[in-house]
Amino acid sequence: MTEVTNSDAGWLSREDMDLARERLPILYVDVVPVRVDDQGTVVAVGLLLRAGEDGQIKRALVSGRVLYHERIRAALLRHIEKDLGPLALPRVPPAPQPFTVAEYFPTPGVTPFHDSRQHAVSLAYVVPVEGDCAPQQDALELTWVTPLEARDPAVLAELMNGQSTLLLQALAHLGV
Amino acid sequence: MTEVTNSDAGWLSREDMDLARERLPILYVDVVPVRVDDQGTVVAVGLLLRAGEDGQIKRALVSGRVLYHERIRAALLRHIEKDLGPLALPRVPPAPQPFTVAEYFPTPGVTPFHDSRQHAVSLAYVVPVEGDCAPQQDALELTWVTPLEARDPAVLAELMNGQSTLLLQALAHLGV
Amino acid sequence: MTEVTNSDAGWLSREDMDLARERLPILYVDVVPVRVDDQGTVVAVGLLLRAGEDGQIKRALVSGRVLYHERIRAALLRHIEKDLGPLALPRVPPAPQPFTVAEYFPTPGVTPFHDSRQHAVSLAYVVPVEGDCAPQQDALELTWVTPLEARDPAVLAELMNGQSTLLLQALAHLGV
Amino acid sequence: MTEVTNSDAGWLSREDMDLARERLPILYVDVVPVRVDDQGTVVAVGLLLRAGEDGQIKRALVSGRVLYHERIRAALLRHIEKDLGPLALPRVPPAPQPFTVAEYFPTPGVTPFHDSRQHAVSLAYVVPVEGDCAPQQDALELTWVTPLEARDPAVLAELMNGQSTLLLQALAHLGV
Repeated sequence: MTEVTNSDAGWLSREDMDLARERLPILYVDVVPVRVDDQGTVVAVGLLLRAGEDGQIKRALVSGRVLYHERIRAALLRHIEKDLGPLALPRVPPAPQPFTVAEYFPTPGVTPFHDSRQHAVSLAYVVPVEGDCAPQQDALELTWVTPLEARDPAVLAELMNGQSTLLLQALAHLGV
Repeated sequence: MTEVTNSDAGWLSREDMDLARERLPILYVDVVPVRVDDQGTVVAVGLLLRAGEDGQIKRALVSGRVLYHERIRAALLRHIEKDLGPLALPRVPPAPQPFTVAEYFPTPGVTPFHDSRQHAVSLAYVVPVEGDCAPQQDALELTWVTPLEARDPAVLAELMNGQSTLLLQALAHLGV
Repeated sequence: MTEVTNSDAGWLSREDMDLARERLPILYVDVVPVRVDDQGTVVAVGLLLRAGEDGQIKRALVSGRVLYHERIRAALLRHIEKDLGPLALPRVPPAPQPFTVAEYFPTPGVTPFHDSRQHAVSLAYVVPVEGDCAPQQDALELTWVTPLEARDPAVLAELMNGQSTLLLQALAHLGV
Repeated sequence: MTEVTNSDAGWLSREDMDLARERLPILYVDVVPVRVDDQGTVVAVGLLLRAGEDGQIKRALVSGRVLYHERIRAALLRHIEKDLGPLALPRVPPAPQPFTVAEYFPTPGVTPFHDSRQHAVSLAYVVPVEGDCAPQQDALELTWVTPLEARDPAVLAELMNGQSTLLLQALAHLGV
């Protein structure tokens, strides 16, 4: 019942979506994919390599829009599959409480998060993945880094749109 | 910078909003207003009395849409002022993490939450208010009930759209 | 390094433990074991059947003390194994934030939680288990109930020490 | 009922407490005191200056033990009053869920947190204070720094026992 297909009337044309993006906050989810050891401690964080709008290669978290009539849980799974492939075996947390909410503003400087296309409000979750991950679609590469490496200023500097802040928030939440 | 005025291009006509409501999840906030004692323990929960769309008088939480280019924090304050008046002195929590996320679906039964007009995704917060509260606009009355009274099936039955579930979630989160 | 063995100097004699219990809050963990479907939605909650101190058969959550020099994560795994067996395959959450903290007082009525032996403060977590569970030691039986069945007053009435409150808090947190 | 007085049998002699500290995890609370603006946004973080055991002057958060038969809420208020004075007007959060749990180990390196005296497990809360704060007892000074200043490596380096990690976790949780 929570599935959304291309034939669904709820889908927006590119034009209508552009219009909505100028008028409404758009609901997103952000996912920090992690590998955990058998005690559940995070041992690695997955970062995507993507080509940005400007052609520059940048790192990114798994991220995407929640569709009309789509459960948040379903949106999380859809975007994880879209970016990490169908064999990632994600363990989406059983509770809906996100660890934080990131407010991406079209105007830089309102918050640490910025999205030139739109005002996006994103529910952020840490999701352990247990299977094989392979970057898909517009993700060029997936790199696993240790929590320590993830805090490296050189790594953080490669994240787009303020997602370095979100990554640091996730690491702080994880206590690693 | 986070203010939104009527002249703002971000505002939607009623017609455009109706169109968006059929195509995108709409971002909301839900607020459970509470009175706390000097230890911070919740002693009362505020419930509004509203006239529903069908003319029926129903209880409701403070609730409303997040506007384009509006911070969640600003939306919380705006809706609290709209429903409880300008002297309520709300203490909006300093962290953006909501205690839960309520997914209101236009189709009944997908989740405990239902909104016939739209697919709304609502970030839910408990907000202590310290000042004088007076129901405003379409709120007919504000009643303060103890946490125990709030669990009364007769009280819960008067809440609309599954907000009885949200109220119980808030009480559980508060440990009262 | 976080292991605790019987030869560890940190262990207390029964007598010393009894003394400490009259003088210090004792740190506990409570676990609500759950089964999730492939979207991560909770489909069942595990309840133990135990013989209480008074000989009465009662339901209980997985619960136990955190030892000296033991990580919370290790305590969670130890108590899950103690009650559900070594093949339960628990997925302990990657972040240390509990969904709530339960304060068990030796005096009834201070909080919803009561423990005649001691003042225990318990960090509560929901833990998905994916493997085979078999009750161990003093647990007589393990029953899986749906979230709906778990709210049945008859089921809740069988939980000891106020753990019915904790179970309801977990279900509220899970949004089920 | 949750008050603890010196005549309470629950109090421990220094000797008994030393013994307990070698055998049991000791329950603590950590408080990050903050100033918020009228939207609830954190504008300053309070840091204490204390003389450490080794005579060195170090920065610290508000922190202390939970006593036998004391509510966590009462412990928070007691330690805030002990360190910030009786006029601080703290707004202790209404829900018991801490933003994180810090595990201080007597052995350095097990976690980011270290306490040579004991294994302490600390529930950490952000608490807005609205009144006049004046350092008390063993706190020599209270400094308010902006969230940006709080991240300054020179400031973080002055925090004891890994509390720089806890401060960064609080700032991440606050989204500032």
